[in-house]
This record gives sequence, C-alpha cells and structure tokens, in this order.
Amino acid sequence: MMRTRPLKVALLGCGVVGSEVTRIMTTHADDLTQRIGAPVELVGIAVRRPDRVREGVPAELITTDATALVKRDDIDVVVEVIGGIEPARTLITTAFEHGASVVSANKALLAQDGAALHAAAEKHGVDLYYEAAVAGAIPLVRPLRESLAGDKVNRVLGIVNGTTNFILDKMDSSGAGYSEALDEATALGYAEADPTADVEGFDAAAKAAILAGIAFHTRVRLDDVYREGMTEVTAADFASAKQMGCTIKLLAICERAADGRSVTARVHPAMIPLTHPLASVREAYNAVFIEADAAGQLMFYGPGAGGSPTASAVLGDLVAVCRNKVAGTTGPGESAYTRLPVSTMGDVVTRYHISLDVADKPGVLAQVATVFAEHGVSIDTVRQQGKDGEASLVVVTHRAADAALSATVEALRKLDTVRGVASIMRVEGE
Amino acid sequence: MMRTRPLKVALLGCGVVGSEVTRIMTTHADDLTQRIGAPVELVGIAVRRPDRVREGVPAELITTDATALVKRDDIDVVVEVIGGIEPARTLITTAFEHGASVVSANKALLAQDGAALHAAAEKHGVDLYYEAAVAGAIPLVRPLRESLAGDKVNRVLGIVNGTTNFILDKMDSSGAGYSEALDEATALGYAEADPTADVEGFDAAAKAAILAGIAFHTRVRLDDVYREGMTEVTAADFASAKQMGCTIKLLAICERAADGRSVTARVHPAMIPLTHPLASVREAYNAVFIEADAAGQLMFYGPGAGGSPTASAVLGDLVAVCRNKVAGTTGPGESAYTRLPVSTMGDVVTRYHISLDVADKPGVLAQVATVFAEHGVSIDTVRQQGKDGEASLVVVTHRAADAALSATVEALRKLDTVRGVASIMRVEGE
Repeated sequence: MMRTRPLKVALLGCGVVGSEVTRIMTTHADDLTQRIGAPVELVGIAVRRPDRVREGVPAELITTDATALVKRDDIDVVVEVIGGIEPARTLITTAFEHGASVVSANKALLAQDGAALHAAAEKHGVDLYYEAAVAGAIPLVRPLRESLAGDKVNRVLGIVNGTTNFILDKMDSSGAGYSEALDEATALGYAEADPTADVEGFDAAAKAAILAGIAFHTRVRLDDVYREGMTEVTAADFASAKQMGCTIKLLAICERAADGRSVTARVHPAMIPLTHPLASVREAYNAVFIEADAAGQLMFYGPGAGGSPTASAVLGDLVAVCRNKVAGTTGPGESAYTRLPVSTMGDVVTRYHISLDVADKPGVLAQVATVFAEHGVSIDTVRQQGKDGEASLVVVTHRAADAALSATVEALRKLDTVRGVASIMRVEGE
Repeated sequence: MMRTRPLKVALLGCGVVGSEVTRIMTTHADDLTQRIGAPVELVGIAVRRPDRVREGVPAELITTDATALVKRDDIDVVVEVIGGIEPARTLITTAFEHGASVVSANKALLAQDGAALHAAAEKHGVDLYYEAAVAGAIPLVRPLRESLAGDKVNRVLGIVNGTTNFILDKMDSSGAGYSEALDEATALGYAEADPTADVEGFDAAAKAAILAGIAFHTRVRLDDVYREGMTEVTAADFASAKQMGCTIKLLAICERAADGRSVTARVHPAMIPLTHPLASVREAYNAVFIEADAAGQLMFYGPGAGGSPTASAVLGDLVAVCRNKVAGTTGPGESAYTRLPVSTMGDVVTRYHISLDVADKPGVLAQVATVFAEHGVSIDTVRQQGKDGEASLVVVTHRAADAALSATVEALRKLDTVRGVASIMRVEGE
C-alpha cells in the first residue's frame, strides 16, 4: 500500500550535517521510500552563503530565503540544522503554522524554548522531533520517550560532549595538562577555534536540560542546569583520581530527588571509578547511563557528534515524522505532566574529593576533621602525605548536600593551618 | 485532551514477567494514563494454574480460559508473556482477529513465525510490538526499527544471553571450567535446571534471527541462523585467549555481505579483544554493538533478562500501542522489503584461532603452513611451544571464508605430525 504523492522536505542549513542529510536522502531514496511508505523529496535548501561549493548538493534547490521556503504550503517536513536561537526559532514556528512537521538538531533552542515549541507543534497538529539534539547518533530521546515510557527513570548520567571527553581522555592517558590536550583536540578538529561552548559546559548543559525534561516528564530549562566547565582540571587532579582508582569525566547528571518531589540537573567534572562503564569511554565518544526502577541500569554508547552520525539521527526522525504524515497522525508530544520543580545545586547530594595543602604539624588533622563534623559532613577516607615541613591532606567525604560540602570547604580555607585548597572535585558513579 | 474510556488490556501468562507487568500497571496507573492520554485497565489475566498464589495480582482477574479472553471484543491490547510456540501463536492470531494489538516477549515465536504474525497484524489493522523479546530492557527493536530507519545497518554483534555470559565471565575471572561455572550459575538462579536453550545457543539464535531481520529489512528465521553452543569452551581456551589479549564471549553476529547482496546470522563462542567494548560486559548483562553507515558504532548495554527489566520493555511497548489505539493508527509494521537471501556459515568471512598438538620435530611448521596455503588461508601469527618431545602450535589466521577455514582444519587433522586439534575458535570484533 504505497502512496505515490511524494512527501516534500525543506532543509534549513547545509553545513556538515545538512550536506550529509542531502547525500543520504539522494543515495538512499529507494530505501527511504520503502520505509516511509511514500517517496520523499527534498524541495528546497535554505543557506546563508549560496555561492559556497557544496559537493553533491543540487544547486537548483539552494535558496537564501528561508522564510519563503518554510511558508510554502506544500512542505510536509522542515529539517532544521542551522543551530542557535534565531532565526531557527522563528523559522520553526512559521513551519508549524504552515502545517509542516519539524525535525531539529538544535540543542540550544530546545533547551531554552522546548515547551513553547512543543505547544506550537501540538496546536498545529504536527510533530517536533529532535533526536539529533542530544548525543548525535546515539538513540536517547526516543528510548526515553518511548522505550522507557512504562518505567520510572531515576537518574541519567552521561558523557554528552565529545570535545571535552577527548581532552580529558588525552590528559588521562598522556599526563598532559589542559592546554596541551586542548591544542591537540583543536589540531585534530575535535575542538573549535573558540572552544568555550564545549569546555565551559554550555553544550553539555543544554543536553542535560533536554534529557532531564524527557526523563522526568517535567520541564527543565538551560537556566535550571548547574554548570561548571573543565578548564580548571589539572594533571594533579588526574594523579589524585588514579590513586583512588578513578578517572575524571565531564558529566551531565540528571536526578530525581530521593523523595521524588524534585529533580536536579548539573554539568561538572567528576571523578568516577575505573570500574564504571563510563570510565572506559574514550576519545570523542559519548555514552549515557540511565537508571530506571524496572529496567535497572542501561547504557547507550556511540559517536556524539559529527556530520554523518548527526545526519543518521536526523534521518531516523525524518522517517518517523513522514510515517506519521502518511498515517495522518502525530507521535508522542511533550510529556511534562509531573511539573516537578528543579532544585538548586546546594540540594544535590554528592561526595567531594578535597586536596588541601596544610602545615606539617600535630593537630592539623583534628582541626580539619572538626570543620567537617561542624558542617555535618562525614569523612570516608583521609590520606596524609608530608615532607619538608609541608603536607597534603586528601579527604574523600561520604554523601552530603552540596551546600554543606561547599560551606565546609569555605571554612577550611579560613583555618590558619590550611595553606590552600589544591583541588576540589565531586565523586560520582558509585 | 484526555480520553476517559479506558483502554482494556488482557494479560496472557502471570509468571515473573506477568506479575511484574501487573504490579507496574497497578502502582503506576496514573503515570501510564498521562503518558498514553487515556486510562489503561487490566481486565483479565489468563494462567494455567489459577490456584498458585500471586502476590499483588487481583484474584478476580484470573482466568484459565485464555481463548475466551482474547476473543472478547472489548480488549484493546493483549500482552503475551507465556513464551513458546503454542498456544501463544493461536492466541495472538485470535487476538488480532478480534481487533486487539499485541505486545509480546516471545522470541521463539517471533523468530519462527514473525512474518506470518506481522502479516496477520497488518491485515487486521493492529500493532505487533516485541521489544521484550530481544535482550530484556535494552531498547534494540525500537532503535533498529525507528532511530536507525534512515541509516544502513551493516553489522550487529552482541551478547544477548545473560546465562552464558555469566558462565563465561566466571570462567574468565576465576579460571573455572565450564561445569563448575555452570553449577555456580545454577545455584545463583542465572541458569535453569535444564540449561540447554541457553548454553547450546538456541535462545541467542532466536534473538539473532529477530535482530537480523529488523536490521537488514529482510526475513531471517531461526533455521537460517548458524548455531554453536559454548559447552565445549575450556579453561585452556581462556588461557589462549588471554595470551592474545582477548576474552571469550558467546556472540550473536548478524552481517550484511560486503557486496550487500546477502546477509548472515550466527551464534557461536568467539575470542574478542579486551579493548572491545563487549569484552567488559560482566555477569549476566547483555550488550549489543551496531555498526551503521552514517551512525558509525553504537552500543546498547543493560540487563538482558529478569522479571522487572522484561516488564519495563513490555510496558514501553504497551504505552506505544495504546497511544496508537488512541490516535486510531498503527506503528511501523514489518519492514522486510529487501528480501535479501541468508547465506550459510561457509560463506561467512571470519578468522580462526587454532591450537594444535604436534610432534616436536623440524619441518612440522612448514607442513602446517603448506596446508593453510593450499586452502588459500593466510596466516596472521604462529606461536610454537615445545617441551619433552611434544609441542603445541597456535595459529591465528587472517580473514577467510569459514568453509576454507574449516576445510583447512580437516586437512590438518590428517597430517601425521598433527597429534590433535586442541581447540578451534573464531576471532571477532577487530
């Protein structure tokens, strides 16, 4: 039962992802037709620089007028791979108003305006799909929205930024410092000329917001996500991590509170045990660990970025929304019925690894231990190393509220016997 | 926009999976209502032994007449967790005829009669979903059918049986022999009293058939899957594997031929490098590695069996088919349009690790090497170890057709200088 009128697709953006989408739509046209149940035709590609040479992209489809393209009433699906907030948001909204479903790879926009966009899609009876916005080709949005739709997700713990994982992996394996590892990542094309969005955790925070919202059936915006970058991580931190049988990863962590009444989302570097499956995620790969009541622990692993992997995710969504168009229906929309509030970082329960430079004299440990006790923070292990009148004290805490841990560190800084706090890092994944 | 008439669900089977499905449907009723867009009600549970005590299962729903239950015209979805071919097949077909969609966890039935069942579902305009049939809670069917619907899958390589992975992991970590490790698995409840279906690879073969069919958009039946169990794997094989930087796993491998014109599916023990992500899959966990043109390498990891994980997968499907019912549509059906033939094991290209007991005298290696050359099999590495007039020769080949490799082994057995073939194992994942 094959429909013969082709579904018409407009593509917004034709960079690395867009050209790969074009290539696959052209070379795999027959497969796509079979899988959708109707032919699918690329009818326009909106770009900013029409003169740029794009191999394999039909020149007659190129236009600079994205607005006119999304206003065409014959368009069934708009694929948005421009990125950023504007003009992407207005174009997507206009597409909805003209009856088109949208497939987007735009994590920043979804993290900021996901709720409004979902509402607009629902109002116009069309689909908004965005598997490619989180961790490239790794299926995460669909498993969370659909496969785990009958389960209760309690935790999402993931490496969702390939650039920073590449840098941290290099630091771990070679003993290099941050700058040196960043240089290598830049030279190999894993880091952009301005790496801020990656190394300061903005990219991962947007993904954490999207994942938390879907996982907990609530709304989490980018502003709700606590964020620390990884530019301060040192070779000494890696040495400390190794002594603990750990490595360091930049993690996106979304959790349901123990009482189930709130959620948290955060991005920061953390030590994780070498035995944890995320510890062995190398180079620019991504991986996301999901803990659910009935399913237990699941992990999804793969390339988190790049033209081809992102295009794979876009095409999977394209097939889905095209099938829905053929069937005259839409897929699952936003599911944010729990309306759980997002707690701040201070409420997050975690563990700290604290390395202190202290005076090498009797009574220091007692002083330090007293400060922990006064803040209600229980100590798991302490390691003291002294030489030449100086000493270092490495403390690993039990689980406590981040506010209490951070107040403990502030109080430690004020002790006369503490010469400095050499490093503070959270410990996760245990 | 919430529909108030509840969707009615009939459950066939109430063992470990069925009681967990019942429990979740009861305790998470409000969440399921929100996620589906309509309330969902369990209206009957067919069992063989009605007198058995089932905690938390409403006694008034229990019936022994499964046929009458699936014939009820008010049933929207039938959940089948009986397993086996009959009566499951007849009950599912009857459910379709009476307008019900079906969620099944039945790998044996899907592997044998998937095509006929899909055709019956399509004929009656209902859904057939079976995520729980392959690797428990790990989303695989949906990612392959939907997330990768715009990509071209070339290879699926997985650990899809928890019992055998537990046994092999024990053998690897403790140096135990097969029987000892099996005893431990039985004592801990990981192996059934009759472990044949697991250790002889029948269970994995059914899953391989299902995965290959979905991955390559063709039909692969259980009979098409080459199958070798893992009862012959010895502690000596693990020692050999370690010397090569490998471990041994029972793998399900589905491949598209290099020319794209055929596919293969097989289950057998194989050495894989310790650096391969599948090598670190411990205990009874499952993991599946998928290679696709655009997506690259993806891995999905989690608990492959057990009441709760399987129930999680069943409930995810239940939400999906209920949503489809509410929307008056059906999800993607069978996609077997490529009709690619399934090649036999002889055509599979693989590598052998062969361990020979040979006479410790000059010229043996030359003789052995000649046999390989005569069969067109190229040698990667040879290791010779001799003592007390006896010697062992360990040969690892380059990639060659399995038929050529197996003919080589037969010819080696006939050499006077070869006293025995101590072990033969394929090497995968490189």
